[in-house]
Amino acid sequence: MKRTLIKNIGILQTPSGCYSHKGSKQGVNVKMTDAAIAVEDGIIKEIIEGGRLPEGDFDEEIDAEGNVVTPGLVDGHTHLVFGGYRQHEIAMKLAGAGYLDILNAGGGILDTVRKTREATEEELIQKSMGFLDEMVGMGVTTTEIKSGYGLDYENEMKLLRVIRELGEKHCMDVVPTFMGPHAVPPEYEGKGDEYIEMICSDILPAVRQENLAEFCDIFTEDSVFNAEQSRKYVECAKSLGFELKIHADEIEAIGGSELAGEMGATSAEHLIAITESGMNALAEGGTTAMCLPATSFYLDKTYAPARKMIEKCIPVAIASDFNPGSCPSLNLQFAVNLGCLKYKMTPEEVLTAVTINPACAINRGNIVGTLEEGKQADLVIWDAPDFEMVCYRFGSNMAKHVIKKGQLVK
Amino acid sequence: MKRTLIKNIGILQTPSGCYSHKGSKQGVNVKMTDAAIAVEDGIIKEIIEGGRLPEGDFDEEIDAEGNVVTPGLVDGHTHLVFGGYRQHEIAMKLAGAGYLDILNAGGGILDTVRKTREATEEELIQKSMGFLDEMVGMGVTTTEIKSGYGLDYENEMKLLRVIRELGEKHCMDVVPTFMGPHAVPPEYEGKGDEYIEMICSDILPAVRQENLAEFCDIFTEDSVFNAEQSRKYVECAKSLGFELKIHADEIEAIGGSELAGEMGATSAEHLIAITESGMNALAEGGTTAMCLPATSFYLDKTYAPARKMIEKCIPVAIASDFNPGSCPSLNLQFAVNLGCLKYKMTPEEVLTAVTINPACAINRGNIVGTLEEGKQADLVIWDAPDFEMVCYRFGSNMAKHVIKKGQLVK
Repeated sequence: MKRTLIKNIGILQTPSGCYSHKGSKQGVNVKMTDAAIAVEDGIIKEIIEGGRLPEGDFDEEIDAEGNVVTPGLVDGHTHLVFGGYRQHEIAMKLAGAGYLDILNAGGGILDTVRKTREATEEELIQKSMGFLDEMVGMGVTTTEIKSGYGLDYENEMKLLRVIRELGEKHCMDVVPTFMGPHAVPPEYEGKGDEYIEMICSDILPAVRQENLAEFCDIFTEDSVFNAEQSRKYVECAKSLGFELKIHADEIEAIGGSELAGEMGATSAEHLIAITESGMNALAEGGTTAMCLPATSFYLDKTYAPARKMIEKCIPVAIASDFNPGSCPSLNLQFAVNLGCLKYKMTPEEVLTAVTINPACAINRGNIVGTLEEGKQADLVIWDAPDFEMVCYRFGSNMAKHVIKKGQLVK
Repeated sequence: MKRTLIKNIGILQTPSGCYSHKGSKQGVNVKMTDAAIAVEDGIIKEIIEGGRLPEGDFDEEIDAEGNVVTPGLVDGHTHLVFGGYRQHEIAMKLAGAGYLDILNAGGGILDTVRKTREATEEELIQKSMGFLDEMVGMGVTTTEIKSGYGLDYENEMKLLRVIRELGEKHCMDVVPTFMGPHAVPPEYEGKGDEYIEMICSDILPAVRQENLAEFCDIFTEDSVFNAEQSRKYVECAKSLGFELKIHADEIEAIGGSELAGEMGATSAEHLIAITESGMNALAEGGTTAMCLPATSFYLDKTYAPARKMIEKCIPVAIASDFNPGSCPSLNLQFAVNLGCLKYKMTPEEVLTAVTINPACAINRGNIVGTLEEGKQADLVIWDAPDFEMVCYRFGSNMAKHVIKKGQLVK
């Protein structure tokens, strides 16, 4: 057994319990001063405050030097496995083209699909390992990853195998989501119904069979998959035992949030255009609002009504949405800054939104997302005396040390 | 003599010449493919493209591995020497308080003044050296630094000595600006005229005598220093041989830009509220528009009309405005991203705005800011095939290697 002591923690700040159920305590954090943590074989054994130290001998000691310590960050929404990049769309965007303009011009996501199909598993793994390294360096210790740039049987399975291998190879905990219905592939242009049928009959059973995904997700949007197609897909996925996520109300509200709440989806994503009815459905369904502020930032859109959703007792999570089109940033600390600056959330609410709430929304709330005895010792020692400083000093990487399962990984 | 070869440059991208005079070519960059640079004792000796290599032997070879190389970035506007931090104002801002509300409540800049006065020179140097390290790591090789948190003779001189020592100790080239009239100090509350008089009679001559600053700057704003006080100050500074900068039109247009143009100021700063008349004055005066997009971002304000100023042949520079109140970010790459996303500038225009234009605006246009034979070998090897990628991948530090006077410093 390996015993590690993390000592001299100026402030230990953590949400307590999971706020993915009714009754919002999103803005409540536990704060202990002059704390220490005893870790045994990667699990938190004891947390103690007030300058005392846990008893016993330790194999390793890590000195937090009076800084603030929080749970490792959890990124609940990424599309981080993709071929190519789309930096040259900047010129199109400067000329005023929107997401759907670029998509309809055969660019955008379909360009990424072409390059993802061309890439080998090994190429995708190598590129994605670099992204995961960078994310860990910024304090993220658990992430969700979606497929969705393959858009056919062979390539979606390839992406899910890549995601599985990333989880096996990298220290990051990885949660896989199947998102075949991310766009209508070129071979099915104008035949969205048939594409959904093919997914339901061919791909979903194979993903289930090989146990390659825990969640299924779909881009429910007027010009992508309509409400009826979405319902068919999520019903099929649910019947096969998958848990659900729905990209809802990003551009227009066509019933995605309502469907998410009704089906008991674990989370609904984006929610920029969510209506009262959509919010009521999320609150009823116990569905987490997965808010993606860096996408609003990059696309120069309005921001999801995160504060209003917190007031309605909907658990709010904040994720990076890292993807090559609408949000080429994997920096979850920047999403933290946007949480304060644009959503007007308090630092405590934001910390909850990047730890326990996304952890619950990817079914890891019992393992990570808070600092509690019995949970994994995933934590960040910030280069800061308090978490307010992390919210404030945007643009700098404030993660000084990152500890994953008790191991110093930065 | 030390000879260094920088080879295998996929694209060498640089503005050519200085766009700080009438006739805008802000969007024109030279791009060479498969280039190499020969450096002798820190100075660019030869630039060659098309896969050929400069002749002769070299003491050191640096392989750019096919990446894009640009001039080292120049940050033309910072307030990076200060005591304390102001992260706890986040709570005030979330409650709706504005810059002037916080100032009028005795907080804001006056809180920083208190902590700066309490700090020793050694403490300020140590803290600021850390900032300069971080900036170099992000690709900045020359920076301006303003005093302005001392607000009395002793402490303004202390800050200017700290700035001088930073330039001597650190590899970063540092250009000092005196900004005593940054705010009215508590001892002169309601007596702005007297404070300006004291500066003109006591501090400015001493700064001149000890050669502690090249530029003088003032915060021209209705609630800080009005147009008349500003004129008195800049006329005195000019008569003593200082060059001028003016914080103008940040909140309200009270004539700051007009004064800057009329007095031939090297730059005018902020310019969020600039009017047609102000723009005409800058164009007439050959005054650079020093735009600070990260401040607009952090304060959730509108953005300066950078595109419009480019169209009016005003040279536009983009700087960080790093300071503990309105912009606690030293990340000039993030300002680059904002240049594209918010100012709607092209990548070429933005590169000009963070290299040669600010270099000219701090009187270093003959030494740095472009990659040309005879200039200092200050450059960035980006982890990117083109500069568009740097504009696109916001949130990641894209500077792979940084070379200062021919030396690899990252």
